[in-house]
Amino acid sequence: MGHISETRFRVRYAETDKMGVVYYANYFVWMEVGRTDYCKTVGFNYCDMERDDANMAVADAACRYIAPARYDDEILVRTSIEKLNRRLITFAYSISNAATGQLLAEGRTVHITVRKDGKTCSIPEPYFALLSKPQ
Amino acid sequence: MGHISETRFRVRYAETDKMGVVYYANYFVWMEVGRTDYCKTVGFNYCDMERDDANMAVADAACRYIAPARYDDEILVRTSIEKLNRRLITFAYSISNAATGQLLAEGRTVHITVRKDGKTCSIPEPYFALLSKPQ
Amino acid sequence: MGHISETRFRVRYAETDKMGVVYYANYFVWMEVGRTDYCKTVGFNYCDMERDDANMAVADAACRYIAPARYDDEILVRTSIEKLNRRLITFAYSISNAATGQLLAEGRTVHITVRKDGKTCSIPEPYFALLSKPQ
Amino acid sequence: MGHISETRFRVRYAETDKMGVVYYANYFVWMEVGRTDYCKTVGFNYCDMERDDANMAVADAACRYIAPARYDDEILVRTSIEKLNRRLITFAYSISNAATGQLLAEGRTVHITVRKDGKTCSIPEPYFALLSKPQ
Repeated sequence: MGHISETRFRVRYAETDKMGVVYYANYFVWMEVGRTDYCKTVGFNYCDMERDDANMAVADAACRYIAPARYDDEILVRTSIEKLNRRLITFAYSISNAATGQLLAEGRTVHITVRKDGKTCSIPEPYFALLSKPQ
Repeated sequence: MGHISETRFRVRYAETDKMGVVYYANYFVWMEVGRTDYCKTVGFNYCDMERDDANMAVADAACRYIAPARYDDEILVRTSIEKLNRRLITFAYSISNAATGQLLAEGRTVHITVRKDGKTCSIPEPYFALLSKPQ
Repeated sequence: MGHISETRFRVRYAETDKMGVVYYANYFVWMEVGRTDYCKTVGFNYCDMERDDANMAVADAACRYIAPARYDDEILVRTSIEKLNRRLITFAYSISNAATGQLLAEGRTVHITVRKDGKTCSIPEPYFALLSKPQ
Repeated sequence: MGHISETRFRVRYAETDKMGVVYYANYFVWMEVGRTDYCKTVGFNYCDMERDDANMAVADAACRYIAPARYDDEILVRTSIEKLNRRLITFAYSISNAATGQLLAEGRTVHITVRKDGKTCSIPEPYFALLSKPQ
């Protein structure tokens, strides 16, 4: 579980609010962008996992905001897995300003695997193996 | 086609941007809120139409911006049908400040009906009848 | 601090994702809508507080997801204050399906008051008095 | 006015809706991302232009949707200037699937320059020169 994926992108104007900084809910979108890249880093596309009828539904999400992000800042999201078993995955995120290195926020999301019918299920084998293999 | 539905809501902080006013893409979300209410006004829920495998996919969308909307303003969206046939619906929208009456924007969306498999289809009969009945 | 404000609105199509349910980050937007109404319930408009150079910046946000919300569901957000002092406010939210009463999510946001220049400050007196007065 | 900027990014899960494809309003966000890059391509950062009290407010926006975009698709936005004078800029966009080359949408936005006080103004000289210089 030592993998850390790195994702970089620029803050969109759409993501700012009238306070002049990024609106707080958008950090959770950035975590999702980080998760998508994390899955690629360990060897699969999350959309394939969904096609195999296993969705990582969010059960818990949290973010601690440390410093504001602004329009056109380059953002670096570092994503890792904090806990993993057949039924639960906890991702941890550090979100920083890529140019200055300043930490902007830290987050965490907990996911359960559910099928399209809403029933919970185990993480299907190939994905579980990829998520749990050591670095 | 003389129906006009009226929808009222307040501008969310999330909808503003660093210019201090509502971000331009959000007017298209407001048009969608107007369309949902329009369908109810003529007698059906759009989600039932989707359940009957007919989605109103957007083929064209346009908006003319006249004056800015701000956080917590009460918005009034007036939605009507401009053109309708078995394969195409054109909705027209006027978006105004409910308190002052000032016109903020005017928009238009053109929709084709598609099935879940992406194939175009006719608007199913009960919905077409409701959409086309006179006031 | 026994006030509870109630906010009702319908799920927008824009708020759903390809899983067919509301995307998880949007619950934080709903909490913001709840906060805006809470301030009105106790007697002020949040935009006036901002005009007086006091912004409730988010320091922490969390949500526990219990059941999914779907397009056009009527949502009820109940907002209350959990903790309050001159420098910190903690809001608590319960988000439920207004028709069925089912609890969908519970959330919490912690705010510090900052001026436009980014410096932290105390909650200005008239607002603090309104936020802290008993029911 | 022969410049064309190219912007690439992947579709976010947040950008999809319950139809399984990208929600129509998000294409206007992508156009904004294209505009930001266009400005860099000709030699300035749009945030500097805003700091000089000149905002490109949107007066008109339109999009024609040709084929759907899906989660994790790589998107290519090609941005160019269609018309330019001291008071009006028209950007044109072609949005395609970067992997297949398929055209997904074509858009257009018209901007007027406004100061923070909302008054219209001319595009300040250094920016106008950069926007109007031949390739």
